Amino acid sequence: MGEESSGNTRKVEVVFSPALFPVYFENTNCTVVVIDIFRATSAICAAFESGIDSLIPVATLEEAIAYKKEGFKVGAERNAEIVEGFDFGNSPLTFKSGQYKNETIVLTTTNGTKAIEMAKSAAKVVVGAFTNFSAVCDYIEKQDKDVLLLCAGWKDRFNLEDTLFAGAVAQKITQNLRFQNLADSSIAAINMYNAAKDDMYNFLGESSHRKRLSRLNMEEDIIYCLTLDQSSIVPILEGDIIVRG
Amino acid sequence: MGEESSGNTRKVEVVFSPALFPVYFENTNCTVVVIDIFRATSAICAAFESGIDSLIPVATLEEAIAYKKEGFKVGAERNAEIVEGFDFGNSPLTFKSGQYKNETIVLTTTNGTKAIEMAKSAAKVVVGAFTNFSAVCDYIEKQDKDVLLLCAGWKDRFNLEDTLFAGAVAQKITQNLRFQNLADSSIAAINMYNAAKDDMYNFLGESSHRKRLSRLNMEEDIIYCLTLDQSSIVPILEGDIIVRG
Repeated sequence: MGEESSGNTRKVEVVFSPALFPVYFENTNCTVVVIDIFRATSAICAAFESGIDSLIPVATLEEAIAYKKEGFKVGAERNAEIVEGFDFGNSPLTFKSGQYKNETIVLTTTNGTKAIEMAKSAAKVVVGAFTNFSAVCDYIEKQDKDVLLLCAGWKDRFNLEDTLFAGAVAQKITQNLRFQNLADSSIAAINMYNAAKDDMYNFLGESSHRKRLSRLNMEEDIIYCLTLDQSSIVPILEGDIIVRG
Repeated sequence: MGEESSGNTRKVEVVFSPALFPVYFENTNCTVVVIDIFRATSAICAAFESGIDSLIPVATLEEAIAYKKEGFKVGAERNAEIVEGFDFGNSPLTFKSGQYKNETIVLTTTNGTKAIEMAKSAAKVVVGAFTNFSAVCDYIEKQDKDVLLLCAGWKDRFNLEDTLFAGAVAQKITQNLRFQNLADSSIAAINMYNAAKDDMYNFLGESSHRKRLSRLNMEEDIIYCLTLDQSSIVPILEGDIIVRG
């Protein structure tokens, strides 16, 4: 990744928007962590924790409709709300009851599933959320690859909550000596996380998406999505399907 | 700029990379502040402070060569160094002597002049640097427009020093009540600036571009570029030429 490279050290960079992914994706032999804290990746982690067998992420509503016609249970969210006619949206609380246990479900969301689609050509694509934070960090550390922390953002814009998670991961994994040469994006995200970590809920009080969700009475979702280590499962993309890692 | 809009309040957003400019540029009736602290926009401000008449920014070396053939004094920088055959690079210290007083000079740089090129269709495009910080803030406040703080970055990657300046500006101008609805990008940049402001030099010690410049013995440039309010001139793009605002 540019002239800062030296020897066998690994790089970790934060990609603040899917629109920047092509800039940072120089080497397919990397691990991409897809991050959409509010709420797609938090929901995917919750779905696996509840016992689903696998999840097919799709970028468009058209694809989601096609799966629905085939009899799949399909979730679809746009602009933070469930799209009419689908079984669920991207609330992680959907999966609390375990009703989709052992099933293959399908999901399309405003930002998260598009980011997953974009990352597909990387060697490893995993789903990260505060809810599986430690498991994701352990997984990354075991891979001998550079790391791209891909923030799904909001319609290609920068957002705070994904940045905080990226900073948490960057800080944790770079404590390991095999990672060096902190990129500016990682320095920034780590800095943000440290400013926020003692009270992320309030730190995000002014953020656009927390306000958006608050207006929609999704406070319970927000609190869930900001709670660390509720799952030790790392969902991993294999081909076009996300499975339990 | 999206659903956060309300009434007549103005927006200020930070664009962390030229590659994100199309995402944020929804309305041509805005002021774009182009930011390339190390060193293009610092150099442009220094050039105007030294008395140049105007500056023609060009994106490519081909255009720069064409102007050179016409007899212009032309600066060209790539990868932080002067391109062979040109009169100067992007060091602001070039202009200390006043040797280009009353002249029209030409400049192409790795990141900054490309960002200027990209911003051209905005109603107002101004050149910002720590060295003209207060003047830029005053200028923006007088315009009745939304504000995009466009970080030139490094080859479309996020960088810290441009973010710090964007944060400084965002903080200053949003103290004015006419600005509301802080975007996540502005919250992040303001946060970074506040973490760094007491000692930006050391805060940037680990940043990629400060290290790059340090290797090239450009410490004096770095210190100059981080020193506030050395000029009260706001360079402004008019058509294809930057003039004294």
